[in-house]
Amino acid sequence: MKHILKVFAVIFLVSCSSKVEVDKTTFGIVIHGGAGTILKENMSEEMEKAYRDKLTEAIAVGHAILKAGGTSQDAVEQTIHVMENSPLFNSGKGAVLTADESIALDASFMDGKTLDAGAIAGVKHVKNPISAAIKVMNSSPHVMLSGAGADRFAAEEGLDTVPESYFITERRFNALKRVKAREANKQTALTTSEMQYYRNQRIGTVGCVALDLNGNLAAGTSTGGMTNKKWDRIGDAPIIGAGTYANNASCGVSATGWGEFFIRSVVAHDIAALVEYKNLSVVEASKQVMQKVKDLGGDGGVVVLDSKGNVAMEFNTSGMYRAHMNSAGAIDVKIYKNE
Amino acid sequence: MKHILKVFAVIFLVSCSSKVEVDKTTFGIVIHGGAGTILKENMSEEMEKAYRDKLTEAIAVGHAILKAGGTSQDAVEQTIHVMENSPLFNSGKGAVLTADESIALDASFMDGKTLDAGAIAGVKHVKNPISAAIKVMNSSPHVMLSGAGADRFAAEEGLDTVPESYFITERRFNALKRVKAREANKQTALTTSEMQYYRNQRIGTVGCVALDLNGNLAAGTSTGGMTNKKWDRIGDAPIIGAGTYANNASCGVSATGWGEFFIRSVVAHDIAALVEYKNLSVVEASKQVMQKVKDLGGDGGVVVLDSKGNVAMEFNTSGMYRAHMNSAGAIDVKIYKNE
Repeated sequence: MKHILKVFAVIFLVSCSSKVEVDKTTFGIVIHGGAGTILKENMSEEMEKAYRDKLTEAIAVGHAILKAGGTSQDAVEQTIHVMENSPLFNSGKGAVLTADESIALDASFMDGKTLDAGAIAGVKHVKNPISAAIKVMNSSPHVMLSGAGADRFAAEEGLDTVPESYFITERRFNALKRVKAREANKQTALTTSEMQYYRNQRIGTVGCVALDLNGNLAAGTSTGGMTNKKWDRIGDAPIIGAGTYANNASCGVSATGWGEFFIRSVVAHDIAALVEYKNLSVVEASKQVMQKVKDLGGDGGVVVLDSKGNVAMEFNTSGMYRAHMNSAGAIDVKIYKNE
Repeated sequence: MKHILKVFAVIFLVSCSSKVEVDKTTFGIVIHGGAGTILKENMSEEMEKAYRDKLTEAIAVGHAILKAGGTSQDAVEQTIHVMENSPLFNSGKGAVLTADESIALDASFMDGKTLDAGAIAGVKHVKNPISAAIKVMNSSPHVMLSGAGADRFAAEEGLDTVPESYFITERRFNALKRVKAREANKQTALTTSEMQYYRNQRIGTVGCVALDLNGNLAAGTSTGGMTNKKWDRIGDAPIIGAGTYANNASCGVSATGWGEFFIRSVVAHDIAALVEYKNLSVVEASKQVMQKVKDLGGDGGVVVLDSKGNVAMEFNTSGMYRAHMNSAGAIDVKIYKNE
């Protein structure tokens, strides 16, 4: 009896200490650059290399910060900057255009330790929207700012601002023209390739989840939204719980895809809830939630990291630009479904 | 053995049929008109009567719709109209003012059967914001619209629009002046009664959850947000998962309170997740989530209904304007904590 009590006492102590002790050797980082119909046969070798190189460059920045003992917040912010500054992705420079040939950028950030969060929707002049989201979290009493007010806040706080023309690329301008021409001719049904083209015009949201050496998770997402969007539409990227969520008690999540379905499915928080309340692994939780999104008719993907460094990169499309690096520095960069 | 198999078969059939069969006699409706420091000693008899009468009038409208076999969507929309049209609440007419003496109304709606949802943030001219949220759901490809774009959409769709002056009341104008005067004099610490005054300037968000005779849940929330809000701040009310959520598989939720904490806690979806994944009752799930909000430093409350008609009206403040009616027509109108 005494022996059994001793065993229970040891189990109790071990399980208590595992809650407060932090494994000071584990860290990790995972990123995405958008999900959609991304097929090898439609991709030039140069383009594929450009994406793989940029994903590698971005994740290496965050990994170096984490390895040096930096915070998951810094890692997420600096990694996302690399993707926001690249015209390859639909975020920051290279963002898609709205129906009135304008720019409207959304971003959000969440800290898994404090559950602090910040978000901005529809900004037109902040060079790096993820930094504006973090600034809202750290320097305002609010979580979410929008439109001209969010731009004004960012400028007051001294963030880098740029004219709208900085973000606009020829590729996205042509895409808007094509989508508008198609919209003007609605009476004929869409061909499969047209449908694919339109769906793909939102590909390229970027996101990052990081776990630092102190065991703290952080997640961030940044996007230009949907080509030809109207009426100041807001997608899932700036919505805490939909596009972004982080909680040390469960996991950090950044999502990308057809935003309307991700809002309705509260994707990021639902994955965290399945991890916390049903003890699912991040992979199993992500699979289940992406299946729910698919059942509703939506598509896209997520990157997820838990506080043990377990990773998920799940999507229900043919591809997702993605990369993962663990504590050991092993890098895993992928684009297509089967690789 | 045969007997045991038969028993199992019966149990199996009963449990299957309970999932598809709808109890055609159960329906219900629950509403709130805001939570905060609401104390009997600070309330005149006339004012208390005015609130109780308006809550009774509002819930009776929805109850009659449900009793006649109408949808939970109609019940939620028409019930919220009564409160939006009353200057007693911080939604529609009587909404609080922004820092630039303007109006910025937020609302959202979710259908628990289809998981369809709609939301608008920061509108200035839609007479009934809840109807704009429903219109976004039913007549646009989007879930969430904001600012001038959302107003334009509502006008294009033929919703009632009004000049901003329609919403503005003397009471809210005076409250803004008082909050601004205080803000200009930040160097002295707030007294307890001042603190209470500022906190209370956001009281009055309205919300409704209904269960119709077909077993379908719907939830909606409508608010003017926070007095003196800046930078086009968006609170939890228009955020699916934070201020509003409905899912026939779990429950419908409408929240009210300090929006920033409700966004960070993903309050509405977290309650639904605890019901669905941990089989908690709506009361227990609401208590747990409101405790999490309190632990972060936030306050407010929720009204919740599940598809069996079980109700929760939980809050961590001294009062919440609230009412509930069940299938039998028994009405329960309350304001203070202990009544």
